[in-house]
Amino acid sequence: MWLGIVIGNVWCTKKVSALTGQTFLLVAPEGHQGPALVCADQAGAGPGDRVLVTRGSGARVAAGESIPVDAAVVGIVDRVEQ
Amino acid sequence: MWLGIVIGNVWCTKKVSALTGQTFLLVAPEGHQGPALVCADQAGAGPGDRVLVTRGSGARVAAGESIPVDAAVVGIVDRVEQ
Amino acid sequence: MWLGIVIGNVWCTKKVSALTGQTFLLVAPEGHQGPALVCADQAGAGPGDRVLVTRGSGARVAAGESIPVDAAVVGIVDRVEQ
Amino acid sequence: MWLGIVIGNVWCTKKVSALTGQTFLLVAPEGHQGPALVCADQAGAGPGDRVLVTRGSGARVAAGESIPVDAAVVGIVDRVEQ
Amino acid sequence: MWLGIVIGNVWCTKKVSALTGQTFLLVAPEGHQGPALVCADQAGAGPGDRVLVTRGSGARVAAGESIPVDAAVVGIVDRVEQ
Repeated sequence: MWLGIVIGNVWCTKKVSALTGQTFLLVAPEGHQGPALVCADQAGAGPGDRVLVTRGSGARVAAGESIPVDAAVVGIVDRVEQ
Repeated sequence: MWLGIVIGNVWCTKKVSALTGQTFLLVAPEGHQGPALVCADQAGAGPGDRVLVTRGSGARVAAGESIPVDAAVVGIVDRVEQ
Repeated sequence: MWLGIVIGNVWCTKKVSALTGQTFLLVAPEGHQGPALVCADQAGAGPGDRVLVTRGSGARVAAGESIPVDAAVVGIVDRVEQ
Repeated sequence: MWLGIVIGNVWCTKKVSALTGQTFLLVAPEGHQGPALVCADQAGAGPGDRVLVTRGSGARVAAGESIPVDAAVVGIVDRVEQ
Repeated sequence: MWLGIVIGNVWCTKKVSALTGQTFLLVAPEGHQGPALVCADQAGAGPGDRVLVTRGSGARVAAGESIPVDAAVVGIVDRVEQ
């Protein structure tokens, strides 16, 4: 999983019906991992939160197997101890 | 998922039969995520649309499990609020 | 999926038995997506052809679920309209 | 799989319930493979350990199919002989 | 799949039990695809061999579905004709 910061929201009116009800967050990865990704929120996160993101098929383990997503916010990070 | 802009169409006459009927869109990712990808359209998108793309096995959740694709347009983006 | 050009063939005598009978093509991705990949041909392609490549588990949707591949040529491109 | 060094721990109080009980390690990949990733520990590793990391759906083969993770520490490396 | 050269071996005494019996090879990808990866050997390869590597869930099609790996050597390359 990677760490990121929620930097915004994304809205799609016209979409695959299975995506109805999902909240899409724009998440910027920490550590220069690339551009912001759109993640289905499964943890009640919002802009400014530092979050844990699962990508790939694991995102559907959190969101539901029939939901065509490939990234999900699965936790809100309290602390990173290095 | 990532955000992209539909920049064209792709046609293949000779192809795996399970791909028959699919519309292939060429989508340029936003934010310098790399070169344009070919995505199976599941949202009725066309050139110029800003779209939401799901990659990997999630593309088949949208397109159908027996369709050998790894990227699908799953929504047309109305608004991104940052 | 991504677009590529078939630039060669790869032969392996010693291999996992489930790979027997597969044709391995060396495909250079367009747009500087990285080095050439080895793809299982499912579309009757050959050197010089411009092709559509599916990666990941989708390659096995085309090649067969029991075939341990992660990239497959699934179509021969006729035209890209940008 | 890739080789990495455990450099820290990550805590999330608010998270998808299926993640309860998992230990999250921050692992820096060797060889400049990118930024540190958060991995679910399946091998009893801790800070300073050199570890073997499995990514993608294979992480759930180790952690459990219903656990929405995409990276897992699956072994502690004793020796690499080059 | 990608082409690589076996450059070493990796040993883990403490590991997920499902990995017992697997041989881990360190494989350097050709063509600057990134750092060396650890692959489960399914083709009887050894240091110096030029090999074909399958990544992701396809590695488990070769190694066994219950083996938490994400990369496997699936063939030894005889010839690449470009």
